[in-house]
Amino acid sequence: MLRRTQRVLVALAVSLPFLIDITSASAEKQPNFIIIFADDLGYGDLGCYGNPTIATPNLDRMAAEGMKFTQFYSAACVCTPSRAALMTGRVPVRSGMYGDKSRVLFPNSLSGLQAKERTIAEGLKSVGYQTACVGKWHLGHLPDYLPTEHGFDYYYGIPYSNDMKPCPLMRNTEVLEEPADQTTLTRRYTEEILSFLDDAKDEPFFLYYAQTFPHVPLFASDDFLGKSRRGLYGDVVEELDWSVGAIFEKLRELKLDKNTLVLFTSDNGPWLIKQQEGGTAGQLKDGKGCTWEGGMREPGLAWWPGKIPAGSVNPELASTLDYLPTLFALAGVATTPDRRLDGVDMSPILLQNGPNNRKGMPFYRGSELMAYRHGPWKVHFFTQAAYGRESRNRVEHDPPLLFNLEHDPSERFNLNEEYPEVLAEVIQAAKEFESTVKIAPSELEKREAK
Amino acid sequence: MLRRTQRVLVALAVSLPFLIDITSASAEKQPNFIIIFADDLGYGDLGCYGNPTIATPNLDRMAAEGMKFTQFYSAACVCTPSRAALMTGRVPVRSGMYGDKSRVLFPNSLSGLQAKERTIAEGLKSVGYQTACVGKWHLGHLPDYLPTEHGFDYYYGIPYSNDMKPCPLMRNTEVLEEPADQTTLTRRYTEEILSFLDDAKDEPFFLYYAQTFPHVPLFASDDFLGKSRRGLYGDVVEELDWSVGAIFEKLRELKLDKNTLVLFTSDNGPWLIKQQEGGTAGQLKDGKGCTWEGGMREPGLAWWPGKIPAGSVNPELASTLDYLPTLFALAGVATTPDRRLDGVDMSPILLQNGPNNRKGMPFYRGSELMAYRHGPWKVHFFTQAAYGRESRNRVEHDPPLLFNLEHDPSERFNLNEEYPEVLAEVIQAAKEFESTVKIAPSELEKREAK
Repeated sequence: MLRRTQRVLVALAVSLPFLIDITSASAEKQPNFIIIFADDLGYGDLGCYGNPTIATPNLDRMAAEGMKFTQFYSAACVCTPSRAALMTGRVPVRSGMYGDKSRVLFPNSLSGLQAKERTIAEGLKSVGYQTACVGKWHLGHLPDYLPTEHGFDYYYGIPYSNDMKPCPLMRNTEVLEEPADQTTLTRRYTEEILSFLDDAKDEPFFLYYAQTFPHVPLFASDDFLGKSRRGLYGDVVEELDWSVGAIFEKLRELKLDKNTLVLFTSDNGPWLIKQQEGGTAGQLKDGKGCTWEGGMREPGLAWWPGKIPAGSVNPELASTLDYLPTLFALAGVATTPDRRLDGVDMSPILLQNGPNNRKGMPFYRGSELMAYRHGPWKVHFFTQAAYGRESRNRVEHDPPLLFNLEHDPSERFNLNEEYPEVLAEVIQAAKEFESTVKIAPSELEKREAK
Repeated sequence: MLRRTQRVLVALAVSLPFLIDITSASAEKQPNFIIIFADDLGYGDLGCYGNPTIATPNLDRMAAEGMKFTQFYSAACVCTPSRAALMTGRVPVRSGMYGDKSRVLFPNSLSGLQAKERTIAEGLKSVGYQTACVGKWHLGHLPDYLPTEHGFDYYYGIPYSNDMKPCPLMRNTEVLEEPADQTTLTRRYTEEILSFLDDAKDEPFFLYYAQTFPHVPLFASDDFLGKSRRGLYGDVVEELDWSVGAIFEKLRELKLDKNTLVLFTSDNGPWLIKQQEGGTAGQLKDGKGCTWEGGMREPGLAWWPGKIPAGSVNPELASTLDYLPTLFALAGVATTPDRRLDGVDMSPILLQNGPNNRKGMPFYRGSELMAYRHGPWKVHFFTQAAYGRESRNRVEHDPPLLFNLEHDPSERFNLNEEYPEVLAEVIQAAKEFESTVKIAPSELEKREAK
């Protein structure tokens, strides 16, 4: 109590707005949330995940001060479905945000995330949060589907991938620039965010920072171009790391660090066919576009000083599907019984005060459940190499392949003959999961005729 | 000064031996050295190098409090040559500790490290260090070649690999147990070391802790067996991590932490043909026995509180070849002009007060220079998959393959056509290096007829 009084006195001596911040922060205030979502970053692309030549001191510090997940999954192996899953806490087949022919949204797509879906932003807004989306949306670029239609007060960014023409830069529903000057995007995203934090700090906020990079084509600002040991890909990731560092610095400056949960991950694995302009999944197999581990397992960091134990390494199963239930639980948003969620509240494993509620993980490609993880075990019913590769044939496995991912993260040793009972159990778990899924019509295949 | 006085006063109040330690430590004392050398540990086997399911909190803490090298090399891709290189600071072809037919020493080998070689232990002993070797020697098991003949006051361990019969456990020159009970080896090594540290603390010491594991066959004590998520291999590495933690705890307890440099690495990459009983090189190619990166690039940690900046990640080139010159420089041992060293003093990059003296790295298989690294570039004159694999054919590359290891650590993109001038430069650097090498007769091929 003495310390709190002292801080208030110091604040009084400085400025009135500062005082207001301190006093309201000392009440049991709703926490702020920041989700930082990279694009096509691989499991092995950060220093703290073993990258030898990309320097990521700010993300490494985030891990050192927070929690590093080692079995954390994005919910899809390509962009649009992955983002839809994060934003809704549901596998994309439930929302229609998948496609068997069009795997992501394109500039000639006619649809997007449906209004009936409830996003993280909508839930948090309903309990008083300020909400902002900065970066790449890719859940529909037409007016009905933009972030401002899905619970975000504010939007600044590009509506789809940076390799799609004409790649406009938008503020809310207005186009600011077309095509966007991508060399300064990371810097401008960061400036927008710092300004949002300056303005937002007296009320709880939710910031969804969906980075455009390191999706190809790669662009870095002059300050980073040619500076990394890893070439252009490294330059771009190092600028992303700088951006993350600037956000943490601002949180500390505004004394928001003790009341802000920051989550970091990526939408899917590295785009391997881009060769040296793509990242690495480390020891994991394959990358973006497939349901081998390299396609969906991602760096997963969580940071909340005083709440999440510093320097913790967490091998528990977790997923972007869990972001929505977790943030809702922490903010006091009731989940609605009218829809099935695939996410679980991960706050017990973040705060290390309870067991993990996640027992399994589905691996979809389009509408098809290709693989399923149950505890340490993963079965592959079908495999298909990442798109763009020469051999794209889908292979059915009967019996399914079986891997122990904790003993064999690289999926080298198929054990389906050695462990028939485990195989049966994992298949059963997959079937039980599938029986809960009603596949909605694909929104991604609604496209303008060329 | 005030703080030092306070510590002395505290010490006085506790015990007299404690006081003596504090006072002698406050003079400019020679630093203590500990080299911890794992066996067949891969680049991707520690948490801080990206392993998802092997928990290595003590080695991770060593990295967090010290320096993590990301381009650190053992000097050979198999055991005996690698150990000879570490101990002498010279590539194994200079000392004869290589073989084209016998790649390592065996129980029927008739030779070992020659008396004319000068080891780290001999150099440090000459300036007053106490010296101890605990663990696997593998530089000759006959009386003339044991650690006690090479500058070590004390030896406790097994003389060759743990898969070789009869695998005796020795103290100095005496056999204690044959075969050694390997389930308790790590625990017993640790107890010996803690006892050595208790006794040694009033004079500078050099401890060479060459772990038997995770070389196959794998053994863990009851406390670790079945405890890791990674299966038996994980159990064994986690017990090794425990052992490292116990050493750090003892150093802190004895107040030796500020005056002790601890180095950690492994002799060569993972033994991939052992499947789930072998480790992983992470994103690096292949493993033990070959000159792709997975065979020789290793975790490399350095710890010296107050001297080495905490939490530093160092992508500079470094090698076990550099241990000898570094320790000699720090202890004030003169190098002798009668022999050529391949190691360089790495203290400028450890203490971050100067440039890196290492410009390149040779990759030998037996007597043959298979590959050479020069700056970020590596050429392969020959490649040959790790031994024991089905296709063991040696392939000559003319022109040599060329990789940029900083852009492409996995050696996926051969650039010899794109960069002919770089290729020529690296070949020239390799030739210049080779011109300094006089190949000694192989000691490893001197074996008893069966």
